[in-house]
Amino acid sequence: MPVVAVIGDGQLARMMQTAAIELGQSLRVLAGAEDSSAAQVAADVVLGDYTNIDDLHRAIEGADVMTFDHEHVPTEHLHQLIAEGVNVQPGPDALVNAQDKLVMRKRLRELGAPVPPFAAIESVEDAEGFFDAVNGQVCLKARRGGYDGKGVWFPDTKEDLAQLVGELLEAGTSLMAEKKVALSRELSAMVARTPSGETKAWPVVESVQENGVCAQAIAPAPSLSAELQESTRGLAQRIATELGVTGVLAVELFETRDDNGQPEIFVNELAMRPHNTGHWTQDGCVTSQFEQHLRAVLDYPLGSTETLAEVTVMGNVLGADVDPGMPMATRMAEVWRKYPEAKIHLYGKGHRPGRKIGHVNMVGSDVEATREAALASAYFLVHAEWPAEG
Amino acid sequence: MPVVAVIGDGQLARMMQTAAIELGQSLRVLAGAEDSSAAQVAADVVLGDYTNIDDLHRAIEGADVMTFDHEHVPTEHLHQLIAEGVNVQPGPDALVNAQDKLVMRKRLRELGAPVPPFAAIESVEDAEGFFDAVNGQVCLKARRGGYDGKGVWFPDTKEDLAQLVGELLEAGTSLMAEKKVALSRELSAMVARTPSGETKAWPVVESVQENGVCAQAIAPAPSLSAELQESTRGLAQRIATELGVTGVLAVELFETRDDNGQPEIFVNELAMRPHNTGHWTQDGCVTSQFEQHLRAVLDYPLGSTETLAEVTVMGNVLGADVDPGMPMATRMAEVWRKYPEAKIHLYGKGHRPGRKIGHVNMVGSDVEATREAALASAYFLVHAEWPAEG
Repeated sequence: MPVVAVIGDGQLARMMQTAAIELGQSLRVLAGAEDSSAAQVAADVVLGDYTNIDDLHRAIEGADVMTFDHEHVPTEHLHQLIAEGVNVQPGPDALVNAQDKLVMRKRLRELGAPVPPFAAIESVEDAEGFFDAVNGQVCLKARRGGYDGKGVWFPDTKEDLAQLVGELLEAGTSLMAEKKVALSRELSAMVARTPSGETKAWPVVESVQENGVCAQAIAPAPSLSAELQESTRGLAQRIATELGVTGVLAVELFETRDDNGQPEIFVNELAMRPHNTGHWTQDGCVTSQFEQHLRAVLDYPLGSTETLAEVTVMGNVLGADVDPGMPMATRMAEVWRKYPEAKIHLYGKGHRPGRKIGHVNMVGSDVEATREAALASAYFLVHAEWPAEG
Repeated sequence: MPVVAVIGDGQLARMMQTAAIELGQSLRVLAGAEDSSAAQVAADVVLGDYTNIDDLHRAIEGADVMTFDHEHVPTEHLHQLIAEGVNVQPGPDALVNAQDKLVMRKRLRELGAPVPPFAAIESVEDAEGFFDAVNGQVCLKARRGGYDGKGVWFPDTKEDLAQLVGELLEAGTSLMAEKKVALSRELSAMVARTPSGETKAWPVVESVQENGVCAQAIAPAPSLSAELQESTRGLAQRIATELGVTGVLAVELFETRDDNGQPEIFVNELAMRPHNTGHWTQDGCVTSQFEQHLRAVLDYPLGSTETLAEVTVMGNVLGADVDPGMPMATRMAEVWRKYPEAKIHLYGKGHRPGRKIGHVNMVGSDVEATREAALASAYFLVHAEWPAEG
């Protein structure tokens, strides 16, 4: 059986391991620490640093394919590995679009994909000019390295923007800016693609962020017209194909209203790996994003993306400000006493405020009831009490 | 988080590990070999022999509960461990009913559960007397150690029976006999029970054996009246409760026709662990038998046993007489090319004729179409060709 080497030791690698086990495969994990989320649950762990080429060499030895649970491996290392004959999926030419927001937006604009107006920001003057061009509706972003709301700023005045840009450029941060979108909600379109070119898309979901972090996902996205569902799935498949993505691609989207009050879609970010907004597939779909990612990078035919329930809701378990004294096992028992159908997924991570330590999936037939149950369960798992009514 | 120590290194322990990972838990595996099915995929493996009390001590060190993927740990060791304060689930007093077929049948008869006429066979005379009592319809069984059709004999004549019994008793095999049942089909009723006494049953399934080995399971059992579904589920729950089973219990059943031609049920065997006829729950149920087993032995509230599809069929992947040259990865790709929805589960085991090396689950809405797809997929995975039509 083929060996997949995963670079990264977080919950995404951990959940790839559960999928790998059932496929009869062996996952190699390049982990920074023995007690990291993925290293805890894998038999074949290489300890090392993903920015070190020697460690990457050790991780790939005897493996059939290298893939990732994050986008932070240096591009030059990936090019070197490919030159040495290593099978890297997704490859660096696709991956750069998930690493550099400016590169991605330029590429998507070339493809005719809907993106907000944007500009490279290489000087305070660039920033001021863009501020005027979009009537002060500026979202400033670090081109690389941001995630979960980090590396994104919304300065209110031209002066604030100028000062911020001056400081960030001084510190060596590459920047871009885009027009702030008056979003009505966020959506996510996920798709998988194989090196042979097969693509398969899951239903588009609605995602809800809190403090820049994904807090919930509702699948399929409620009140999204069948037409927009289809066109958005098609858009994700086209992006995957045009960018040469392999494995799972998440296209994070903004839904806005056009001048006629009709729903309109803009691409926000890309991620080339399993994604938080796809966790619902573990319990709500025939094929989970983790199995699909493995199938895709191994160039197997992709699995069915049919849903198993009318609605599936995922609620993230995000560390509370204060660790409740109650042991986690007791909290799980309380959740299951109230909701025997709650699918609890935990990452083997210690408590820290705001940290993603798990998620709860719930399948059902009624959106509101299912959402309430999933979110209440996720809430209890960190607060050891039920949320206030309403 | 609690640590579960599993005694046994086969596919059942392997699939408990996938469930454990998602629950954020750590599975300790007592394995006979590093490359065994479960040891391949677990980070915390103790190598040792489950008949050796010292090895059992090493396996349980620092763990919260001990459970099993087979029933072969010596009863005296279990009693000793309990006396030392170890939390053993299921305990030896329940487990003996899955270890000794005579003890089980006596106990079930006491409970009023339907069992065929049976007798202890401690001499050739016992056997001859029983032969006459059941008009020659004799099924002879080893009281302990049999599985997958091993340890079961159907002698045709009184002379054959007498000779067989003489030889087996001489060899030290404890025996019992029961009346051979004119079965119309086999069913399986699975249930989980916690130490606190909660029970939850899955729908009763039909299982099909080939050469004494489970080859397929169809859930729920087709053409089983709602009344018989309910009463059989109730029977399994009552057996679990009366015998003090904890974890998952499989009640293997014979369906026959009574004198009026109406369906009638007899208990055949008990297994106190996840069971081959429950593999379908991994893809067809809200809660799989592996998650439920962990929840049960840890005394968590049990999960929903609602189905996710109208029908789920499991086909076992049983080693063919000849290993086809095609690599397994290529076989998987071929299966998925035809059936993108096939859920392939492999156990990391090498090929051997008749050996259980995996299974395929398929969900659907039509029994025959779903069964055909599941069985064809399982067949291809060992033969590298599709079964002949019809």
